[in-house]
Amino acid sequence: MATERPSRLRVFSLNCWGIRFFSQLCTQRYEMIGELLCQEQHDIALLQEVWSERDFLFLKRKLSSSHPYTHYFKSGVIGSGLAVFSRHRIQDALLYQYSLNGYPYMLRHGDWFGGKAVGLVIVDVSGLKAHVYVTHLHAEYSRAQDEYLSHRTVQSWELLQFVRHTSCGADLVVLGGDLNMHPQDLGNRLLRSHTGLRDCYTETDMFDGCEDGHTLIADNHFTKKQDLVPFEKGIRIDYILMKGSQRVTMKCESLSTTKGPVADKPFPYSDHEALTAEFGLLHSEDSRQRGSSDTLAVSEQMEVVAEARALVKEGLCQTEALRDKAMHLMFGALLLLLLPLAMAFLPCSCSCSFSTLGLLGAVCMVLLLSGALLYLLFTTHIKVLKETEDQMMLTSNDLQTKLTGCQLSGSSSLDGSPEIQPLSPFKREE
Amino acid sequence: MATERPSRLRVFSLNCWGIRFFSQLCTQRYEMIGELLCQEQHDIALLQEVWSERDFLFLKRKLSSSHPYTHYFKSGVIGSGLAVFSRHRIQDALLYQYSLNGYPYMLRHGDWFGGKAVGLVIVDVSGLKAHVYVTHLHAEYSRAQDEYLSHRTVQSWELLQFVRHTSCGADLVVLGGDLNMHPQDLGNRLLRSHTGLRDCYTETDMFDGCEDGHTLIADNHFTKKQDLVPFEKGIRIDYILMKGSQRVTMKCESLSTTKGPVADKPFPYSDHEALTAEFGLLHSEDSRQRGSSDTLAVSEQMEVVAEARALVKEGLCQTEALRDKAMHLMFGALLLLLLPLAMAFLPCSCSCSFSTLGLLGAVCMVLLLSGALLYLLFTTHIKVLKETEDQMMLTSNDLQTKLTGCQLSGSSSLDGSPEIQPLSPFKREE
Repeated sequence: MATERPSRLRVFSLNCWGIRFFSQLCTQRYEMIGELLCQEQHDIALLQEVWSERDFLFLKRKLSSSHPYTHYFKSGVIGSGLAVFSRHRIQDALLYQYSLNGYPYMLRHGDWFGGKAVGLVIVDVSGLKAHVYVTHLHAEYSRAQDEYLSHRTVQSWELLQFVRHTSCGADLVVLGGDLNMHPQDLGNRLLRSHTGLRDCYTETDMFDGCEDGHTLIADNHFTKKQDLVPFEKGIRIDYILMKGSQRVTMKCESLSTTKGPVADKPFPYSDHEALTAEFGLLHSEDSRQRGSSDTLAVSEQMEVVAEARALVKEGLCQTEALRDKAMHLMFGALLLLLLPLAMAFLPCSCSCSFSTLGLLGAVCMVLLLSGALLYLLFTTHIKVLKETEDQMMLTSNDLQTKLTGCQLSGSSSLDGSPEIQPLSPFKREE
Repeated sequence: MATERPSRLRVFSLNCWGIRFFSQLCTQRYEMIGELLCQEQHDIALLQEVWSERDFLFLKRKLSSSHPYTHYFKSGVIGSGLAVFSRHRIQDALLYQYSLNGYPYMLRHGDWFGGKAVGLVIVDVSGLKAHVYVTHLHAEYSRAQDEYLSHRTVQSWELLQFVRHTSCGADLVVLGGDLNMHPQDLGNRLLRSHTGLRDCYTETDMFDGCEDGHTLIADNHFTKKQDLVPFEKGIRIDYILMKGSQRVTMKCESLSTTKGPVADKPFPYSDHEALTAEFGLLHSEDSRQRGSSDTLAVSEQMEVVAEARALVKEGLCQTEALRDKAMHLMFGALLLLLLPLAMAFLPCSCSCSFSTLGLLGAVCMVLLLSGALLYLLFTTHIKVLKETEDQMMLTSNDLQTKLTGCQLSGSSSLDGSPEIQPLSPFKREE
C-alpha cells in the first residue's frame, strides 16, 4: 500500500579527521565539508572525529538553514567526536559509551581519551520513525599484531546489542560510521549477522566510487602510504548499513564515495572518503521484509558468535596477564620501599642522607601508585570481557534453542557452554 | 481474550549488603537468603550488592533446581553487584553502566569501585516476553548536603532512557532494585513519569509489610540508627516498578516486605528489607492499557524534566569548579617544581643536596600527576553532564511539540531552550 510518505532518504557519513593542531588543514577542510553538506542537502549527515566542540559549532552555524536539527554526542575526555546533522526533527538521543576502548597510558594512540561510543538519534522523517546510529570504533594500528582486537570485538558486540535492543519500534534503521574493520572482519560479520543490518556497498543497485568501495585510499593527499600496507589499493572501513521494518521496505538505490581529490579544491575533505547512500522507501502493509535477524541463518549467527567468544576469551587471558604484571609492579615497588627503610637502619659508608632515602621512597611510591592504577584498570577490563563472554553464551544458547526448537524449561544453560546441557545447567563454574 | 498463558508472576528484590569482610554475618545471611529463595520459589529474584562472585556462585549452586537461569552482571572494579535468578529461561542480557558514579578518591564511600549499572534480562515467561531490569543507584550519604545528587539524577536519567529505549517489544516490564531515593525524590518522579512504570507500593491491592513500605527500618538489627535521621520511622528506597503492554495488562495484586527480624532466625536477611510483588496478568487483545508513557500527563513530564535540567546544570557548575581546582593544583605543582630548579642554581647556606632537590621534585611530580588525573576525571564528568542536559533538552522539545501539536519542520530547536523558538533554532550557543 503506497502512501504519501517520503519515498527517498539520503544519508551521508564521513570521518572528518578533526584533531585540532594535528590534522592538516583542519579549518579549511571543515569549510569544505560545510559547503558540501549545504549544497548536497542530505537528509541526515553522520560525522565522526569532530573532536572539537568549536568545529561542531562552526558546522552548526553553517548548516543552520539546511540542517536545522543537530546533536553532538559528548563522552570521554575529548569525545565522542560523533555529530549528527539532520533536515528532519530529532526527537530523542541516547549514547552508549563502549566499556573497553584501549588504554589511557597509550598516549600516542589516544583512543582511550576519545570515549568511543555509539550514538542513537530518533528522527521523525515526515511521519516515519528512523533510528539512526553513528559510531566510531577503536582504530587498528597494526593488522599483524593488533593489540586492540579484543577491545574492538567487545565494541562490536556492544554495538550490536545496543542496536538490537533499541531498534525495535523503528520504521527504518540506519547505521553509519567508521568501524575500523575490513568487510569480512569478525566484528563486522558479528554486527551484520546479529542485527540483520545490511551493508549498502553490497546491496546497492548502483555504485559510484573508489574501487571495491575503499574509504582509505592511496590517492588521498592525507593518507600515509605505510598505513595501507599490505593493502596498497585501499581499505574499506567506513560503512552505511541499513534495515527496514515490517512497515517499510528499505532499498539502497545508489551508493557513492568521494575519490580523494576534490574538483576545484586543493585537497580532499579528510583522510577518509565520504559515503553517500540514497535509499528508496516502500511503504507496504504486506511487506515481507523483516527488520529482525529472523531471516538470517541461525547457524551462521552461531558460528560467528562462537568465533567471537574464542577471541574474547583470548583477550581475557591477555588482560589477566597484564593484571598480573601490574601486581608484580606493585610488589616490586613494595620490596623496593623496604630498601630505604633498611638503609636508614644499617651503618652505611655512602652518604645516605635523609633526603636520599626520601627520594628513593618517593620513587617507590610513584611505582606503587602506578601499579595500583594499572591493576584497577585491568580489573575493570576483565569484568567487561567476562560480561561480554557471558552475554555471548546467552545468545549462543538462545540460538541453539531456536535451532532445535527445544524450548522445554531446564533444557538450556545460561552460564554453560554453547552446547545445550539438559541435565547440567551450570556447566562452567567460575 | 483469555489465553492459557501464565496468569501470575512473583518477583523478589533485595539489596543483600554483601560486602565481604565488612558486612556482618555475610555467609550466614547468604545461607538464609538462599533458603528463602528456594522455599518461596519466586519466578524472578533480583539481587543487589552481591559484590563477591563467590557469593553469587554459592547462591547459584543452592538455587540450581529452583532457579536454573541466572545472570550475574559484571562491571567496574568490584561490581556491579547485580544478579538475577529466574525460574524461566533468560534469553538475553544487556548491561548499561552509569556514566557518573561518584569519585574514585572517595574511598570511604566506594560507590565508584562498584561500577553501578542497570542490567536487563529478557525472560521467556511461558511465551511472554518479560523485560526485567535490576539496578542500584549511588548511595545518599547525607540528605542535607548531598554531594552526589547530580550524579544520582544523571543515573536516573540514564536509567529511564535505557528503559524507554529497550522495553519496546516487551509484553511485561519489571524493574527492581535499590534506587537510593525517597518516593517523591526528583529522580524517582523522573523515572516514573518518563517510562510509565508504576510503583507497586502505591498500586498494590494488598500490602503486608513495614509502615509506609519502608525498606530501611530502625527495627532492623543491622541498621545504624544515625543513618535514618531525620526519618526515625524508616525510609523507602527499594522498589519494584512495573508496566504492562498492549498485549498484557499487569496488575500488582499484593506486595509484601520483610519486617526486620526473621522468625526462627537470630538476625535479618540484610540491612535492607526484601520486597515481594505478585502480579496478575490479563492477556487481552483489546486491552487499552498502554506500555508507553502516552497516558501520563505531558505537562507533568515537562515539569519534572525541567526540574532535573536545573539540577544537572547546578551539578555542571560544581564540577567545573572542581576541574578548576584540579587545574590550580597542577599549576601549583608546576610552580613548586621551579623551586628545586632555582635552588640548584642559587648559592644556598642550607644543605641543599642533590637528594633534597630530587625529593622535592618527586613530591611536585606526584602533585602534578594527581592534578592531571583529577582534571581528566572532572573533564569526563562535565562531558556526561552536558550530554545529559542536551538529551533532556531534546526530550523537553519533543514534549513541547506533542503538547502544542506543532510538528512543522523548523518549529523546534534541538539544542535550544525547552521553549519552542520557531525562528531561532539554535538558541544556545555553547
